[in-house]
Amino acid sequence: MNYFFNWRDHARALPEKFYKTTLFQGAHLMVGLNCLEPGQTQSAHAHQGADKFYFVLEGSGTFVVGDEERQAEAGTVVTAPAGIKHGVTNSGNERLSLLVAIAPPPIR
Amino acid sequence: MNYFFNWRDHARALPEKFYKTTLFQGAHLMVGLNCLEPGQTQSAHAHQGADKFYFVLEGSGTFVVGDEERQAEAGTVVTAPAGIKHGVTNSGNERLSLLVAIAPPPIR
Repeated sequence: MNYFFNWRDHARALPEKFYKTTLFQGAHLMVGLNCLEPGQTQSAHAHQGADKFYFVLEGSGTFVVGDEERQAEAGTVVTAPAGIKHGVTNSGNERLSLLVAIAPPPIR
Repeated sequence: MNYFFNWRDHARALPEKFYKTTLFQGAHLMVGLNCLEPGQTQSAHAHQGADKFYFVLEGSGTFVVGDEERQAEAGTVVTAPAGIKHGVTNSGNERLSLLVAIAPPPIR
């Protein structure tokens, strides 16, 4: 099993829709990478019974969490507790790459 | 509730022992920050029934996961699935800062 991942090895652009990939899936936790090109959006949604966070790796975006909307840049942890609506738009000029963790993992 | 955290606002050195703080604690997931000064160590340990990962924010360290020992720098995700032994030593010359997530959260 591979325990080590450099996120830059997994970053990628998709023109039609933001890119997402899974780096690790355990019994209790999923870790993935989302890449949004400028203008791409992850629509606001909520995970019932699962906590999530984003960590901004590069770029900047406009995040919505609950009733709050805020711009966040590289170095920011954005949390989305279970049941709280959240989404993000790449409102910058470069790629927005996000490390994403969800616990428990979504059922696939 | 605050959903947004910049890890740099929470980084800190402790001379006697590596520094750890919690950024977010939900029902299903805990997100924290660990800062190890050069030479400081988090001894190898395992979480039964909880998946964990580190994300290297700055610096570099020598990680042990299971039977594997590896040097990792900023940008690396280091996973420690439930029951797998893991630990880290700051083997560099600058602070090693790690974002850490554990699911489910440790009982406090």
